[in-house]
Amino acid sequence: MTQIDLYEAMQTLRAVRRLRPDPVPDEVLHRVLQAACWAPTGGNVQPWRAIVVRDSARKQALGEHYLAGWNEYSADHRAQLESAPEAIQAKQARMLDSGDHLAENFGQAPAVIVFCFNPKLMAITDAGLDRISVVGGASVYTAVENLLLACRAEGLGCTLTTLLCGYEEHVREILEIPEPWGTACAVPIGYPLLGGHGKISRRPVEKTAFADHWGNPFSA
Amino acid sequence: MTQIDLYEAMQTLRAVRRLRPDPVPDEVLHRVLQAACWAPTGGNVQPWRAIVVRDSARKQALGEHYLAGWNEYSADHRAQLESAPEAIQAKQARMLDSGDHLAENFGQAPAVIVFCFNPKLMAITDAGLDRISVVGGASVYTAVENLLLACRAEGLGCTLTTLLCGYEEHVREILEIPEPWGTACAVPIGYPLLGGHGKISRRPVEKTAFADHWGNPFSA
Repeated sequence: MTQIDLYEAMQTLRAVRRLRPDPVPDEVLHRVLQAACWAPTGGNVQPWRAIVVRDSARKQALGEHYLAGWNEYSADHRAQLESAPEAIQAKQARMLDSGDHLAENFGQAPAVIVFCFNPKLMAITDAGLDRISVVGGASVYTAVENLLLACRAEGLGCTLTTLLCGYEEHVREILEIPEPWGTACAVPIGYPLLGGHGKISRRPVEKTAFADHWGNPFSA
Repeated sequence: MTQIDLYEAMQTLRAVRRLRPDPVPDEVLHRVLQAACWAPTGGNVQPWRAIVVRDSARKQALGEHYLAGWNEYSADHRAQLESAPEAIQAKQARMLDSGDHLAENFGQAPAVIVFCFNPKLMAITDAGLDRISVVGGASVYTAVENLLLACRAEGLGCTLTTLLCGYEEHVREILEIPEPWGTACAVPIGYPLLGGHGKISRRPVEKTAFADHWGNPFSA
């Protein structure tokens, strides 16, 4: 097993969108899938499945839909950026460029892991609320995060993408996914073309955590 | 910083539902919140906030709703179990007993971390589909999983609970959460009363992963 300190893995897990075409060994894929299995899920049901797509034709078909989704998303995003401060524009432009690369090469990623979920195996406590539901994700994205961290440990580039969920009927057909399973994300995986994982930029605890009630900053 | 191997942390992260009343030092809470911040989120927006509840009255108020939710859930679950095989009954009975303990003592957990999310800061690609949405969770539960793993590293017991989402209007009032923020989960945290983290039981890769298409088992 590849060893890495937990906090070190977390604080160097980047979205790596430029991947080399070299295949990923089966045993390495097995380890990152095993990491996903270890994640907690509601009632320990593991109501998700991961499809490891390496077949060229299927990857290519997924890639066409991903590119369509990306073109729509990035055009909107670029238009909104025009009114943003210069420093933000520069940073976002780099993200968009690497997003372009991913979208143009999605079908060439060595493996795309598509996570599926079954809502009938979940107790979705926010299903009846007057807002969009997220709770089903509690039994899927814990597993996805484990897989991403395991990729970091294994030196594999990866990024969590959800654009293909907007094309679910097509993805269902391409990967033969039966009802009532839905798709939660697609993670393209491969060895990094450039620097790969490393320094990340995040809002600090002081801007994301409160003490006892909303609006009261948590400070240690 | 506390060191632990990534895979070791993942494969020993249990749902620890029996907690000691001893307080958790601020700097330890800061580290687990920092781990949450490192998680990836869509567009790197971090559209979540964590409320660290330590105030007795607020914890007690949350605990009353949690107990109501648990009583309803566990009664259903116990009724369903009557027709299950004996080995499953025994295992599930242990889980339900520890769930009872948590529910009866929710308000006495040293800290309850409530994760909130803002759907307006998210690109929810499955919002228009003819099934329940989960994609908003991709930018919250990645952070929650990091926090749980960090608790494991710090020797803190914890478990991801979503029962309080069904009582969101009450939680909103207790914690002064403004619209349009919603609640994604509550994680009671404290040092373990009994053995704490350790061996976990999960379905293996062979039962959760497919190669290239649904139904075709992945094997390394």
